[in-house]
Order: sequence, then structure tokens, then C-alpha cells
Amino acid sequence: MAVVKKRGMQTVEFRNPPVIASWSSTVGIKEAAGPWGQEFDWVMPDYLLGEKTWEQAESKMMQQTVLNALGKQGLIASDAELLLAGDLLNQIISSNFAARELSIPFLGLYGACSTMAQSMLLGSMLIDGDYFKRVVAAAGSHHYSAERQYRVPVEQGVQPALCSQWTASAAGAVVLQDAGDGPRVTSATVGRVIDLNQKDAANMGAAMAPAFVDTLCIHLADMGRSPDDYDLILSGDLGSVGMELAGEMLVKRGWPEVGFVDCGVMLYQGQTDVNAGGSGCGCSAAILCGPLLKRVAAGEYGRVLLISTGALMSPTSSWQGESIPAVAHAVAIEKP
Amino acid sequence: MAVVKKRGMQTVEFRNPPVIASWSSTVGIKEAAGPWGQEFDWVMPDYLLGEKTWEQAESKMMQQTVLNALGKQGLIASDAELLLAGDLLNQIISSNFAARELSIPFLGLYGACSTMAQSMLLGSMLIDGDYFKRVVAAAGSHHYSAERQYRVPVEQGVQPALCSQWTASAAGAVVLQDAGDGPRVTSATVGRVIDLNQKDAANMGAAMAPAFVDTLCIHLADMGRSPDDYDLILSGDLGSVGMELAGEMLVKRGWPEVGFVDCGVMLYQGQTDVNAGGSGCGCSAAILCGPLLKRVAAGEYGRVLLISTGALMSPTSSWQGESIPAVAHAVAIEKP
Repeated sequence: MAVVKKRGMQTVEFRNPPVIASWSSTVGIKEAAGPWGQEFDWVMPDYLLGEKTWEQAESKMMQQTVLNALGKQGLIASDAELLLAGDLLNQIISSNFAARELSIPFLGLYGACSTMAQSMLLGSMLIDGDYFKRVVAAAGSHHYSAERQYRVPVEQGVQPALCSQWTASAAGAVVLQDAGDGPRVTSATVGRVIDLNQKDAANMGAAMAPAFVDTLCIHLADMGRSPDDYDLILSGDLGSVGMELAGEMLVKRGWPEVGFVDCGVMLYQGQTDVNAGGSGCGCSAAILCGPLLKRVAAGEYGRVLLISTGALMSPTSSWQGESIPAVAHAVAIEKP
Repeated sequence: MAVVKKRGMQTVEFRNPPVIASWSSTVGIKEAAGPWGQEFDWVMPDYLLGEKTWEQAESKMMQQTVLNALGKQGLIASDAELLLAGDLLNQIISSNFAARELSIPFLGLYGACSTMAQSMLLGSMLIDGDYFKRVVAAAGSHHYSAERQYRVPVEQGVQPALCSQWTASAAGAVVLQDAGDGPRVTSATVGRVIDLNQKDAANMGAAMAPAFVDTLCIHLADMGRSPDDYDLILSGDLGSVGMELAGEMLVKRGWPEVGFVDCGVMLYQGQTDVNAGGSGCGCSAAILCGPLLKRVAAGEYGRVLLISTGALMSPTSSWQGESIPAVAHAVAIEKP
């Protein structure tokens, strides 16, 4: 086995790039009404899925998304050796309870909306490192459980700020393998926690933009690449406000020409009630496992870079006057 | 590089067992009053550490514990390539904010009281797999922040149940390296989420005992070993109630003679107000990084097995009538 091509402190280039052998996406009715509505595997008929609470529905959504991803290869839960998953709920209960039902050996993650890239990055290292043959990496979020935990119950009808983002009801899961056909994870960058003292919990995009810029610049420097080396760069959930700020920051970092699209802006394009766009672990997970991987597999894109971003505060830290730390992790995905 | 000796589905035996090159433990005054009080590196003078809130103090505790662990080798934060950490707080804010201050590339974990074994297990794979040269794995918990989040503020003076456990104010951090002197992580087992329908949130030991038994039996089967092959088996935070239940379950699984000690029972031995014993991410972390690793390094124990256990519910899941899922992860540590 070749030695890992370590690139700088934070970036790894894989020896045997893990294969994304199958994947699946799930969204709610609102998410399906966006421009990518036809590209998701499962549109949930409602937000409760026969459960009594939003939280239980969220867990069921993640569980089913993992099964759907495995099912595309004719596999069942017991064919997976490891589940790496996380979500937005306190104590990541939707992932924990999904892992209980699936009975796949489980490592829980918390990276807020960066979770999809975090789980893929770790899963890819564990496959490439020869510890497992098949790892499922997953992330999800649910609008109604998240709103009542982080802000106020949706039923209360509070008017959100224009810079706020709409937590997506969505999930995505990828099945990473050491062999098979499909797009491959070729490199990954682990992010640092960045905090420029932004304290407005209604403006996550502003809090996450610096982390996105930091990880993107480190990834490019470590790999000796320019943005042009990617057919597409996707930020995970900066929203329109964060995207604009990130563009300005990239200019200051010497990259005036970086074109990137944002999963949060993409998901609800045309829907004005989401304000600055979508967010939530499920947002970049669903865009990845809906339109994106399909296009990479079809050869439409040769090399893409997904940088999922997460705001790492809690309501408690905000009440205590803390600013909002953020992190972003990157995974480069290439056509087979 | 040799191929990983994969043992069954859940256990990995490392090619180049990562070195625990340095480590550090932190406890509060109450924890220092137990039988191991002299064995911890830093006894916090109070529970606020100059901060305004318990949560901020908890984050400062973790931050300082990581620095203390690195400092034993004359290293500073920027010498570490990756921080893997988690805690009990919603959105793991004590780890997130510690990672912000330390500025070490960061992957957040959630495994409740299993976090120390989880972070070591992942860190060991990432070192052995050649992705990083130096990874810090850490976990911590704080009595006063945990009680008000999970149960009621301590100031309220509610009488706890006799089967309840005392969340430790404690933290531990290990510096895992590809080279150096020190005990080595030789194998690891990733646990499954187990739930035998125990619903009493005051009795975590009963909820976690089955997960401990499951992971221990799988580890032994995968490695082709018996309990006698270990000089010490440590469960992370079953408390006296869970420990007794685990003993009974092991008899039913065909292991009548398994002697093991519990970090939760050890930490406060002789203090009756803790009821069934200690718990919290910091409990097994501090026992590991206090008395245990010292004794392994000194050759007093040749091979030990730490199985940290975590209860994966949240107050919300309990209010919604859910039972308590639990997970346990194992790491085998051997003398240099």
C-alpha cells in the first residue's frame, strides 16, 4: 500500500480513492417544490411519517435514507460495517435512534451543517486506511424539530429575519466502499474552527462564510490547485448573505475569480419565504445525494469540491453572549 | 505497509499501534476527594475557573486539558494536526469553543459517556492509517452544566434516585502519535447501539450495561481472546447498578468469571452522595488519563481494555416516551 500523499497539515489525498458506490436523498414537500425537486429519491408525503413527533419523524427519515442508499446496490443494513452520522438535535438523537433501528456499528458525529462532509471525510479515511470495506456516511435535518429547538416552534408564527435561513427537512446518505463503480472521494480537508465575533444567531451565513473561505484556501494551497481545477465548487449552506460575504473575502485572499454555488441557495431557488436560503445538515446532504453525484457519475462534472459549513453555537452559548464559531470541511469528488 | 488485521466486522487490530505519547487529566474538588485524587494532573480550584457560566468553565477545562497533555512533551496547540473531541452539552459547545481557542483542525464527536473511547479509536485509526502524525483525542463533562441541561439545576436541591449517577466534573486528553514512547493502542472495537427498552432516565447504568456486554463479547470473540488475556478490563461509567447487571448478563453469555472494574465506581469510591457512582464523558477520560495510563506505562499492567459506555438519549426523547439506547466502544492498550 502506498504512503498517503499528505498535503500540508489539513489535507489528505487518498491512496485508493474510496468509491461512492450508491447514495440516496430524501426531502420534504417544500424542498421538492424547488428547482431540483425531480432529482431526489424520496419525497416524504408529510413531515411526521406516521410518528407522533417531529423528532421521531426525523430519525425515521434518516433510517430510511440509509436503507435506500444501501438498497440501490441490493444491500441491507447488515451489509454495512459502520455508520457515521450526525444531525442538529441535542445529543444527535435522530442519528442515535436510527443507528439503534439499523443495528450498524455506529460512531456519532456533531458538526452542525458541516456533517455531510465530515462524515464522508472520516468514512473515506476509514475505507482508504483498510479498516472497513463498506461505510455509510449520512446526515439529516428536520425543519420543525430544529426550529423549536434552536428558535421557536413554527406554530408560533414568529417573523424570521431576512438574513435567516430555512432549516431543510432533508437527508442524504452515501455508501463508501473500497471497490465498485461510482464517483470517488479523491482528497479531503479537515477544517479549523473560525470565529470573527459574529453574534447574530439569525445570521448564520455571516458566521460560516469565514470558515468556508479558510478551508477552501487551505485546500487549494495544500493541493497546489486553483479554483479552475474544479468543474464545480459547492459551499454547504452559506445562503445568499454568506455567499456574498465569502465572495468578498475570497477577493481579499487573492482569488477574485472564484465561482461557487451554494447548496442553501440552490435548494429553494425561487421560494422567497426562505429568506437567505436553506440550511441544516440535510441541505448539502440532499444536494450532494440528489443532483450532484448523479452528474458526477454521468461525467457531466469531472471534479467537484463540496465544502459543507457548520455553525457550532447552541442557544445556550448565544444566550450567554458568545459569538458563533464555525467550521467547514471539504471533500473532492471525481468522476469514475 | 501491512494489511490491517481485520477481526470480524467491528474490531480492528492496528498495523503500527499508535503511541499514547502523553496525556493529561483534570478533575474538580469533589473528584479529587476520591481515592485517586493524587493521580490527576490538575485539580480545578473551583467550578467556574474565572468564567461567568458553568458551560464556559467546561470549555476552558477541556482547552486546558488538551494544552496540558501536549505540554508534557513540550508541545503547543499548533503542534497537533487534529483534535477529536466531544462532551455532553447540546451541540457539544464545550468542545467547539475549545477547538476555536486551540485552532487545531477539529472533528466533533457525540457519543455521550463513550466519547473517550470513541475519540481514541478514531484517532488511532487516523494515525495508523498514516493520515496524521499527531492527533489529540479528548472528552470532558461538568457536573453543574450537565445537571441543569439533563435534569434540574443543582441549586434546586432535588433528591436524586439511588440508582442515579453523579456527572463528573472532569476531562482527559491523550496525544496519539505515529512515533514516540508510551503505551500503545493495539486494537479497537466499534460498538452497536443496543436498547433493551429501559426507560428510566435516572438509571443510566441499566441502560448502558447491555451495550458494555455486547461490545466486550464481540471484542473477545473477534480477537480470539478470553477476559484473562487482559490484566484489567474497565467499563466506563456503568455505576454499581449497571456493573451488577452487566455481571449477570456476562454469566448468561458464558463468561461467569469476568472481573472488571468500573470507572464510575472507582472515581468517587467512599463518597455516598454520588449514589450509584460517577458518569459523564470526563469520568472514564479522567480515570484513563489519571491512574490507568500511568500504570500501563510503568509496566504494572501489560494489557488493559477500556470500554467506555454512553447513553444516547436526550431529555426530549425521554419526554416523548422513548427508551434509552446505549453504545460502548473498546480500546485495548498495551505497555510499551
